[in-house]
Amino acid sequence: MTPDWIAVDWGTSNLRAWAMGPEGILAQAMSDDGMGRLSPDRFEQALLSVIAPWLGSAVMPVIACGMVGSRQGWHEAPYRAVPCPPLDRAGMVRVPVNDPRIAVYIAPGLKQVQPADVMRGEETQIAGALALHPGFDGVMCLPGTHSKWAQISAGEVVSFQTYLTGELFALLSEHSVLRHGMAGTGWDDAAFDAGLSAALSRPDRIGAQLFTLRAEGLLAGLSPDSARARLSGLLIGVELAAAKPYWLGQAVTLIGAEALCRSYARALAAQGVEARTLPATECTLAGLASLARTLETAR
Amino acid sequence: MTPDWIAVDWGTSNLRAWAMGPEGILAQAMSDDGMGRLSPDRFEQALLSVIAPWLGSAVMPVIACGMVGSRQGWHEAPYRAVPCPPLDRAGMVRVPVNDPRIAVYIAPGLKQVQPADVMRGEETQIAGALALHPGFDGVMCLPGTHSKWAQISAGEVVSFQTYLTGELFALLSEHSVLRHGMAGTGWDDAAFDAGLSAALSRPDRIGAQLFTLRAEGLLAGLSPDSARARLSGLLIGVELAAAKPYWLGQAVTLIGAEALCRSYARALAAQGVEARTLPATECTLAGLASLARTLETAR
Repeated sequence: MTPDWIAVDWGTSNLRAWAMGPEGILAQAMSDDGMGRLSPDRFEQALLSVIAPWLGSAVMPVIACGMVGSRQGWHEAPYRAVPCPPLDRAGMVRVPVNDPRIAVYIAPGLKQVQPADVMRGEETQIAGALALHPGFDGVMCLPGTHSKWAQISAGEVVSFQTYLTGELFALLSEHSVLRHGMAGTGWDDAAFDAGLSAALSRPDRIGAQLFTLRAEGLLAGLSPDSARARLSGLLIGVELAAAKPYWLGQAVTLIGAEALCRSYARALAAQGVEARTLPATECTLAGLASLARTLETAR
Repeated sequence: MTPDWIAVDWGTSNLRAWAMGPEGILAQAMSDDGMGRLSPDRFEQALLSVIAPWLGSAVMPVIACGMVGSRQGWHEAPYRAVPCPPLDRAGMVRVPVNDPRIAVYIAPGLKQVQPADVMRGEETQIAGALALHPGFDGVMCLPGTHSKWAQISAGEVVSFQTYLTGELFALLSEHSVLRHGMAGTGWDDAAFDAGLSAALSRPDRIGAQLFTLRAEGLLAGLSPDSARARLSGLLIGVELAAAKPYWLGQAVTLIGAEALCRSYARALAAQGVEARTLPATECTLAGLASLARTLETAR
């Protein structure tokens, strides 16, 4: 089995690769050699250890997106400034490698000067969503560690904004005093809704809502499932409060992990906003494939 | 040197003890045997290893406050419900010990049923502030890992509210993606003021303000000192936005670490609120001393 090209999503904490043929995915592999744990001279070996079984005698195009292209990554792929199409051929950076069997390209991220913002990886998902739904005009939301909201028009990212929601949830639920009342993995939709509604109606009071989760655990028997779900509702609510200019009166396309997108869709539905969800990996691959096609055309 | 009694402030991360004589502090000592790292059977030895040099032939009263009295601590001192005086003789819990040279008492914390809230340790500082300023009526703010705002009237804590501000600052500046742009220990008053003003005027937009610190570091050369000071301003601003019912039109007494109280005083002054600062340790000792006097009276 020799693929036409190899797709790579290389983030801070892991590396995922797909062997791509004319009909789509032939094989996939991953490792925890994320950009965050590699020095620049170790990226090529980390990549080869995952994709070596797919290499043949011809030079294999490898197209990567994500934090691998940051200044602290393998090789910097300088941000492109919005408004611009999420990906384009000219922005791709060819990485010098030692192994003659691979030709590695990194897709650059996007930057916005005012208000200052950056993304790396999400631009590829946005490009993929556009490839899957040509002519899309509207708002995309990519929930995650750093949630992104993007305004898309005429094939370009017009503006975007990042929220620390996922990272705040992880820090508060695993590393703050609130963790004591949040063990386990269960869920409570009603508690999520209550947190969401409290944060959306009075986002200015978020500072007072967090410790209450701990105090209700101590004094009123708030269950760990309810506490965790309400924290999620509070944080997504504060994000939605700030992102209102993006979603108010709009149809929203969500791109991300299934469970998280379900929470966002539920939150948006409570505000009368309909959301459609696209799977993140499918979008990533469609975005990288659009770059692969431009390479073929250029050959 | 044999003191009359020993004061102990025993929090989650350390233990501080003072040998107290008729004129005040005779000696002090501390260890990092905080409540967070001790199982119940190790508290007595942890205490003795700090205070043993001060013990004589008579039984020594030891009066402790803080997390040592929590359910996970040495011996639970059940919360007293507000409204009530911050400390009183009847609430003190005598801890069973093996060493006949010590008589250990723990001061209980306070709870508020609705909105649910708790404190342990701060009630002693409030009692101390009242002892230092008898007849005080108004608002006390105790900035810290978990900032507390308390309404005091007629010698009682009427209501209080806790904010995770200090813990959020530590998590975001040391453990989130923002840490990359916040190394060092310098400061920037103008950046603090800018963050404060942004958060106070639009607290609903806090979700969008945090990642901007990282993006401005990458794109606009925001310095680590400015980024850290602006984060502090943003978080204190969000706290002040939610705590407005406490401070609006009030004189505020701050109790806490000097530099942090200066930041809060600066923030309050920008809102036209005058704040007086009392040193935290002095208040803790005055609060514990008020309990020591009730013990003497009872003997």
